[in-house]
Amino acid sequence: MKILGIDPGIGRMGYGVIKKEAGKEVFIAAGLIETPAGLPHADRLLLLAVQLEKILRRHKPDIAAIESLFFAKNAKTALAVAEARGVAILYCKKAGLAIEEHTPLQVKIALTGYGRAEKFQVAAMTKKLLEMPSELVQDDTLDALALCLTCAASRRT
Amino acid sequence: MKILGIDPGIGRMGYGVIKKEAGKEVFIAAGLIETPAGLPHADRLLLLAVQLEKILRRHKPDIAAIESLFFAKNAKTALAVAEARGVAILYCKKAGLAIEEHTPLQVKIALTGYGRAEKFQVAAMTKKLLEMPSELVQDDTLDALALCLTCAASRRT
Repeated sequence: MKILGIDPGIGRMGYGVIKKEAGKEVFIAAGLIETPAGLPHADRLLLLAVQLEKILRRHKPDIAAIESLFFAKNAKTALAVAEARGVAILYCKKAGLAIEEHTPLQVKIALTGYGRAEKFQVAAMTKKLLEMPSELVQDDTLDALALCLTCAASRRT
Repeated sequence: MKILGIDPGIGRMGYGVIKKEAGKEVFIAAGLIETPAGLPHADRLLLLAVQLEKILRRHKPDIAAIESLFFAKNAKTALAVAEARGVAILYCKKAGLAIEEHTPLQVKIALTGYGRAEKFQVAAMTKKLLEMPSELVQDDTLDALALCLTCAASRRT
């Protein structure tokens, strides 16, 4: 079973792909889809869609684990992120993936057993579980990989 | 020049199509794309996308006029609307349309010359300008047609 994790965003969308085999989670890929801030909004959404389509074609995941969206301090940013998230959900759906949403709280609990864990603790557990060299992955993509692991854990129980 | 107006929403997305010819705006079509509340979120986005694609193929508009989104009382609703709006913008962009965003204030001023106009005044002007029988169009689609007229007016000046 292949899981695609998506940390939605309009300027940077983190993604990660893991494989779950024999009770173990194995890292496959991770990265960032970035769109230039100067580009018109519609072009940024199109760029995200095109890049996401490539990732879906390349890795053929079975499930998408997408972060739930809540209101950040900046309401305007939240709406732009929601637009990007809508596009991501649609493309995963079109590609036939099952779609799961996970809150940051669920991710913290799944990875560290503690709902008030710090970001660096979640990141450290993600790297440890996936046996990744620490220099291999940027912060943003670690969020996406943590979503993959949360999804894998929820399927285990 | 054909203009597609879109009033974004996840449960009901209003659309309208008008043609601008010789300084006059002519009604072509209007309607609602509805998605059942019981459907999973991803399926609702897919349904919106599929229906919007049909409308784009049928009417081949040149410009899309989409309502800008602000924070409503209900933040959760605003995020769901933003996701639907992202999908609508993406599909218009993919179909090669120019994309314009208009605020409710711009619509009110374009239609009535008064930024604090009531909804029924905007609706009445929309019907009058497009010479529509009053029973022909529901409220939700009138918002989309008002966006078309706002776009047409902004191109005139």
